[in-house]
Amino acid sequence: MITGKNTIGNQSSASGTATFKTFNPVENKQTPWVFHQATTDEINQAVQLATEAFQLYKNYSGSRKAEFLNTIADEIEALGDDLIHTYVAESGLPEARARGERGRTMGQLRAFAALLQEGSWVEATIDVGQPDKQPLAKPDIRKMLFPIGPVAVFGASNFPLAFSTAGGDTASALAAGCPVVVKSHPLHAATGELVASAILKAAEKTKMPNGVFSNLNSSGISVGQELVMHPDIKGVGFTGSIAGGTAIYKLVNTRAVPIPVYAEMGSVNPVVVLPSALKEHTAYWAKQYASSITNGTGQFCTNPGLILGVKSEAFDQFIAALGQEIAQITPTPMLHPNMLKAFEEGIDQVVSSQQATLVGAYNGEAAPNYAKAKVLTVDAQVFIAHPMLHREVFGPYSMIVQCDNDAQLQAAIESLEGQLTGTLLGNAKELGEKDSIVEALKEKVGRLIRNGVPTGVEVCAAMHHGGPFPSTTNAKYTSVGVSAITRWVRPVAYQNWPLELLPKALQNDNPLKIYRIVDGIHTSNTI
Amino acid sequence: MITGKNTIGNQSSASGTATFKTFNPVENKQTPWVFHQATTDEINQAVQLATEAFQLYKNYSGSRKAEFLNTIADEIEALGDDLIHTYVAESGLPEARARGERGRTMGQLRAFAALLQEGSWVEATIDVGQPDKQPLAKPDIRKMLFPIGPVAVFGASNFPLAFSTAGGDTASALAAGCPVVVKSHPLHAATGELVASAILKAAEKTKMPNGVFSNLNSSGISVGQELVMHPDIKGVGFTGSIAGGTAIYKLVNTRAVPIPVYAEMGSVNPVVVLPSALKEHTAYWAKQYASSITNGTGQFCTNPGLILGVKSEAFDQFIAALGQEIAQITPTPMLHPNMLKAFEEGIDQVVSSQQATLVGAYNGEAAPNYAKAKVLTVDAQVFIAHPMLHREVFGPYSMIVQCDNDAQLQAAIESLEGQLTGTLLGNAKELGEKDSIVEALKEKVGRLIRNGVPTGVEVCAAMHHGGPFPSTTNAKYTSVGVSAITRWVRPVAYQNWPLELLPKALQNDNPLKIYRIVDGIHTSNTI
Repeated sequence: MITGKNTIGNQSSASGTATFKTFNPVENKQTPWVFHQATTDEINQAVQLATEAFQLYKNYSGSRKAEFLNTIADEIEALGDDLIHTYVAESGLPEARARGERGRTMGQLRAFAALLQEGSWVEATIDVGQPDKQPLAKPDIRKMLFPIGPVAVFGASNFPLAFSTAGGDTASALAAGCPVVVKSHPLHAATGELVASAILKAAEKTKMPNGVFSNLNSSGISVGQELVMHPDIKGVGFTGSIAGGTAIYKLVNTRAVPIPVYAEMGSVNPVVVLPSALKEHTAYWAKQYASSITNGTGQFCTNPGLILGVKSEAFDQFIAALGQEIAQITPTPMLHPNMLKAFEEGIDQVVSSQQATLVGAYNGEAAPNYAKAKVLTVDAQVFIAHPMLHREVFGPYSMIVQCDNDAQLQAAIESLEGQLTGTLLGNAKELGEKDSIVEALKEKVGRLIRNGVPTGVEVCAAMHHGGPFPSTTNAKYTSVGVSAITRWVRPVAYQNWPLELLPKALQNDNPLKIYRIVDGIHTSNTI
Repeated sequence: MITGKNTIGNQSSASGTATFKTFNPVENKQTPWVFHQATTDEINQAVQLATEAFQLYKNYSGSRKAEFLNTIADEIEALGDDLIHTYVAESGLPEARARGERGRTMGQLRAFAALLQEGSWVEATIDVGQPDKQPLAKPDIRKMLFPIGPVAVFGASNFPLAFSTAGGDTASALAAGCPVVVKSHPLHAATGELVASAILKAAEKTKMPNGVFSNLNSSGISVGQELVMHPDIKGVGFTGSIAGGTAIYKLVNTRAVPIPVYAEMGSVNPVVVLPSALKEHTAYWAKQYASSITNGTGQFCTNPGLILGVKSEAFDQFIAALGQEIAQITPTPMLHPNMLKAFEEGIDQVVSSQQATLVGAYNGEAAPNYAKAKVLTVDAQVFIAHPMLHREVFGPYSMIVQCDNDAQLQAAIESLEGQLTGTLLGNAKELGEKDSIVEALKEKVGRLIRNGVPTGVEVCAAMHHGGPFPSTTNAKYTSVGVSAITRWVRPVAYQNWPLELLPKALQNDNPLKIYRIVDGIHTSNTI
């Protein structure tokens, strides 16, 4: 049952008078539930409890935190179809997506649990002391990673599960040893409440300290603003728009004590089509890309919003084929009427600039809140001269840039802002020959993809889902995959510390059996 | 021969009209050389050359960059006594310190060269693809670290060699594959020019691209400001005051595209004296700390500026003994008359607040620019209530905080800002018993030291020289030790990339024989 209340540690709370509802885009009407926006007092309580919980939680063993994360996954599953139906009602996304995203969310939690069980993620580095070294004794120095403290996580509109309440930011912060205060996304507050209840159940079952997790409702920006400015919040995870993420980043930078903001924001995910990809695979790639552009109604951070190629008969054929494919994609709902409005306004701005021409669009009728996919094309010279054409239009849309030659293609790539991904379609021989184009693309992105589509981000250790600004605020960190844990930690070194008082990860007999760097050597041996 | 010119790539340049001189604090007069401040054109030229050099330098092998770094070390040594005498003239520091710091600087360069030769620092992480996996193929994903681009480095006043022109920031950035533009410290521009000439010679000998290094003279703040705001500068390394570092950090945050600023700033390096340390070692610790407080005329970022303990007869004896030791420390010169002025004003502010009382001070005469060491003491209640007393006074000075009990000691620690180091004097048994005090200190610092002095920062893999704000702008990174290289890189992942086109570190046969994480396992095996 949805109560509409905030979750402040192990209590439900609805002391505020401001309320809001979520919206069912398929039925084109509000959902039945009434949510109470968190008050300043409730925000402060949540952070206060998180700060107290941190004193205990930060010292819990990897096994104990792993048990917590695994139990969260179990409890999310135990929510059953209630969660699926609520997700579908609040997002307009199909049930199969809901089930897939639930599986991904549980998989992420379990992946972090496995990382904790293995234990080497703390990057234990040891230089054994040499008290008799001449002319000076060499001190014994040992460092490892420790959690930074309570973290604020912003739920994302487009991933009500995998990038929200118990999503990658929350899972990675809890894994690191940081309590989490979630600012729930206003578009799916009921989904958020259900997931919060699962986290709370897991916290109780595994005897976690009260305050290790809280969930705050909010319909506007004030709750998030207050949360990130709270002096006891030590880090921020955000997934959303460039405007939203940049605003939070700038606000946080006004704090007396700066804290890290890991905002994963917009990206047009450029795709470079090389001639070798078009020799035999024109129809294949046209179909693949029509599908990738419209997948999830185009509401993915890795949506391919930009396709670049050198003018040729084959490229013309690809463009025509993609246009035909796009025209056949039946509209699907966007997450909210406001998103459809922003999508249509975004395309209108491009069209009314009279710089780009239509390649293909769905031309039939569409139900309210359903988006008609569209692909436009522009000459590279015009594209380079008009940064407005570089912007992400969130939804089922892509822009094809036609270049005169490789030099102009490279110039078009160099004119781009930072991106999450960059894709090259072509055979290995051609990739090897066009290394300056590959290199130009690499400088702009966090992940290079060959012969694929950017949508679909594998959750694994080698994944890097993060790129130069404005795709993120910090290109050094990923928000997908187990490396995301490193966002919430900092190293502390112990010098000449009593061996028996060192954390287990730094002890001579290596009781956790982890990989460490000892006197410069990677090893899991004892000392 | 000192020319007073800027080093812009492989050219000397002095196109500006603004000039300045450095100062010999021992002789209390200006040095003979005239330095030309870099103009806007010269700054732009240096960054332009660095950007061009990056296109080549970023792809150089670890061996080739190692050869460059080792040759820089050789060329610094080849400067011989010229460098030592210039260093001493511009800093007032003794010749032994100059020779020691030269050795440290060369050692750092060689340590990074060894790191490059070993090669595992790129954190190669590989998840091998499973094209036949059901229900979906698992893509092949491989990531490693790549350099971010040209880096601006600010020379530090207090380490004319080890934290300046070819110091840790420059060495780590060059090791990472990033060209460096140094803003030379105005107090030791001649030392900087000599070291720059050594780097230039090494660059020529090892055939590095023109622009891999530049050195800009500057007497004020404008050159540094222009440099960090240049759109092609991708990162900043700084060592200096909280005011200076914070100003640069705030300025950089106004850039359209934010870049990382690694500023290592001020710290009072709290030292907690536990009763067990005072039983037998009062005289020993008093002597050790009198020496640490006045080492290098107190001009170290790890200077112990704060000593805390619980009131007792033994603590009174320690305070008295430290006061007596301090009174016997013969004054030594500060780096510049302005630094002595700031030191004296800082102490005057504390004294005139009438909150603290004198424990000990050198009472004899001192030559111009020579600093008289001083130790004050204050009651913990007063200390906690007056943040002014928490501030670093750069120079041979420390404040002793007297606490009523352990709870107040903990409260005093919790009232502190972030610090580079925290030290505990005491036996292992007592450390184990007072874990809440240890834990409180740990939350404030980047390095915990037992039974030692904070001055003297070992250069090794396990060192962490970085702590919570304001001791640094980013507590996740160190400026000492080989881990400092990670400040200048970001990961890029390759998805389904042709195996033969992957960087060597990611290839199946592991030609560099480095440690990698392959399918979650730490290994140096081939795939």
